[in-house]
Amino acid sequence: MLNFNFYSPTEFVFGKGRAAEAGHFVKKYGGTKVLIHYGGGSAVKSGLIGTVKKSLDDAGVKYCELGGVKPNPRDTLVYKGIELCKKEGVDLILAVGGGSVIDSSKAIAVGVPYDGDFWDMYSGKPVEKALHVATVLTIAAAGSEGSGDSVITKEDGMLKRGTGSDLLRPRFSIMDPSLTQTLPAYQTACGATDIMAHVFERYFTNTTEVEITDRLCEAVLLTMVKETPRVIADPDNYEARANIMWAGTVAHTNLCGVGREQDWNSHGIEHELSGLYDVAHGAGLAVIMPAWMEFVYKHNVMRFCQMATRVFGCQMDFENPEATALAGIKAFRTFLHGIGMPINFDELGAKREDIPALVEKFGLGDGRTGGFVHLSSDDVAQIYNIAANAEI
Amino acid sequence: MLNFNFYSPTEFVFGKGRAAEAGHFVKKYGGTKVLIHYGGGSAVKSGLIGTVKKSLDDAGVKYCELGGVKPNPRDTLVYKGIELCKKEGVDLILAVGGGSVIDSSKAIAVGVPYDGDFWDMYSGKPVEKALHVATVLTIAAAGSEGSGDSVITKEDGMLKRGTGSDLLRPRFSIMDPSLTQTLPAYQTACGATDIMAHVFERYFTNTTEVEITDRLCEAVLLTMVKETPRVIADPDNYEARANIMWAGTVAHTNLCGVGREQDWNSHGIEHELSGLYDVAHGAGLAVIMPAWMEFVYKHNVMRFCQMATRVFGCQMDFENPEATALAGIKAFRTFLHGIGMPINFDELGAKREDIPALVEKFGLGDGRTGGFVHLSSDDVAQIYNIAANAEI
Repeated sequence: MLNFNFYSPTEFVFGKGRAAEAGHFVKKYGGTKVLIHYGGGSAVKSGLIGTVKKSLDDAGVKYCELGGVKPNPRDTLVYKGIELCKKEGVDLILAVGGGSVIDSSKAIAVGVPYDGDFWDMYSGKPVEKALHVATVLTIAAAGSEGSGDSVITKEDGMLKRGTGSDLLRPRFSIMDPSLTQTLPAYQTACGATDIMAHVFERYFTNTTEVEITDRLCEAVLLTMVKETPRVIADPDNYEARANIMWAGTVAHTNLCGVGREQDWNSHGIEHELSGLYDVAHGAGLAVIMPAWMEFVYKHNVMRFCQMATRVFGCQMDFENPEATALAGIKAFRTFLHGIGMPINFDELGAKREDIPALVEKFGLGDGRTGGFVHLSSDDVAQIYNIAANAEI
Repeated sequence: MLNFNFYSPTEFVFGKGRAAEAGHFVKKYGGTKVLIHYGGGSAVKSGLIGTVKKSLDDAGVKYCELGGVKPNPRDTLVYKGIELCKKEGVDLILAVGGGSVIDSSKAIAVGVPYDGDFWDMYSGKPVEKALHVATVLTIAAAGSEGSGDSVITKEDGMLKRGTGSDLLRPRFSIMDPSLTQTLPAYQTACGATDIMAHVFERYFTNTTEVEITDRLCEAVLLTMVKETPRVIADPDNYEARANIMWAGTVAHTNLCGVGREQDWNSHGIEHELSGLYDVAHGAGLAVIMPAWMEFVYKHNVMRFCQMATRVFGCQMDFENPEATALAGIKAFRTFLHGIGMPINFDELGAKREDIPALVEKFGLGDGRTGGFVHLSSDDVAQIYNIAANAEI
């Protein structure tokens, strides 16, 4: 096990009807003027924004608002938000939405106290100061409600880049699973895929003897394998929604990653897909992640056998471990297909002929990247090819 | 799943050699004058107190010190600590030790800013103010390094009582597994038992549909089942020590308990044993917990089958689930015996004839207690009886 720091100071406020406590928690964490940041009209139409506003009114907290966050949130709206916050003297950004809204909120929080362009922090400069961020989560997926991470897309060139800092971990996150019950099956499945990917990126490691982290990873994965099909079959299932929502948070506070190297190549390779085609991140991951597994599994067959047996209930073939490893990857892809996810380029809406451009944009050149297997540009091209042609 | 709040703001600083960072983290969390609180001479002799002092000196942080914390920490030393802190103007208590030292530190932290007797907060009064607490952990067991809980024994009558508050969650906890390598096998096993008990108290619940919390519980338990015998066989095994140490924290931040009712009767029933005989809490739990299981398992046979199959690898007997449930309990007791724990009153040094006095001291009268099965005084007596006579 490697040395590590684990820090997850967010107060999670979980369960039915908790959005009405937004005002109480804003005051508890010292907010006096709030930016309510949200996406499309659904948060308004559902009455959620109204509930939050009433709660802030009741608590005597002032606010302004900015909607319009799109999936793969753009720098252009971030600039607007920064300007608005400076003008209005905002001291806490309240994200009402999913990962995109939260990521956009974090970017605004970074930009307000910074003299230059917030994009500097999405180009490698460390975050040194940020406004407080808090969330009212409406989609179980990104884990952004408990993480210090944020990913923003530069509209000019659709360049997707991220930053991370403990300063960006939300002060509090209100998580009401019933708010996710209206989410269409496709988006629900995209979220579930993202949650599982957050775990797999940490699960495949070269660090040995981290049994506790392995088991915690498997706890989240087993929960997702059980609960996701239940939600796809019955979108109103509160209990299954609740399990998925909390699993999504646990998947990304880094509890599932401490004490070892992590990989994160599948996320990087996927980001180029969702950047170029503006498809959902989870859908891109459903295509890329099993392809990445097929490309790298020989690097540590036993680790894939562990996944196959512990997570997907495969029988270990002691005479042929490779068969078990492949059975596990197949079980994962079959699971994704079963919850309605695309499993190849055609189903995703991506084009084989773009592969050279995707590799070029990935920007590896002659370098290598990744914590589990160090991939070259050529390896990345091969993974896109496996993904393009995958079948059940 | 029930509504819940989850809040674990402690920064965990984990790994070899981290105690040298104590000064840095004290400053980060605003400490200017520290009380170094510890137990016997081993922390001094090992050089750990010296390392911590040097680190504080290097950071320019002032300190005073108070040693002498005993297992089942006493109110008498807490009063001394409170007086010292008031006199010296201490603003952060740094516990260097195990659960007893941390619990004593939390009691001092509660007492310093309080006008009356700190024992009020151990008699039901809510904690409203406390000094900051931080820890350098030397024993994996109590989980006190990540919890807001503290248990203190009133010397007059050996009365054991607890308190809990988010204000008592340590600001930071330095956790170096190599510091636990000198711990004798018996104390190591006591700690492991305590860790498993913290999970079981939360695992046995009447709340259904909390799969994610179940799986997280099982993750900790599976880790303990694997790693504890390795450490007993080879006390210098850093990797196994590291897994156990982190599992102990995860077991008690309440991550393993959210979203449902918890039980905690075994802890209550055990507290009377360690209070009366001054035996190790973990040893008392090894005697009580399987006895409690045997007394209550018929309340939910399937839940015990889940434990038996998922944690102890028992085969499910679909024609006779009760047999599987009992096999799981037997596997737990055999496991405890195998790591050198007592499994009945004789091995613990407790006396059958004291059972009426133990029940009397438990103080239930005509009432009932517990989240899983509501026990009466008569039930408690029966559990003590099962514990008294248990055999492998």
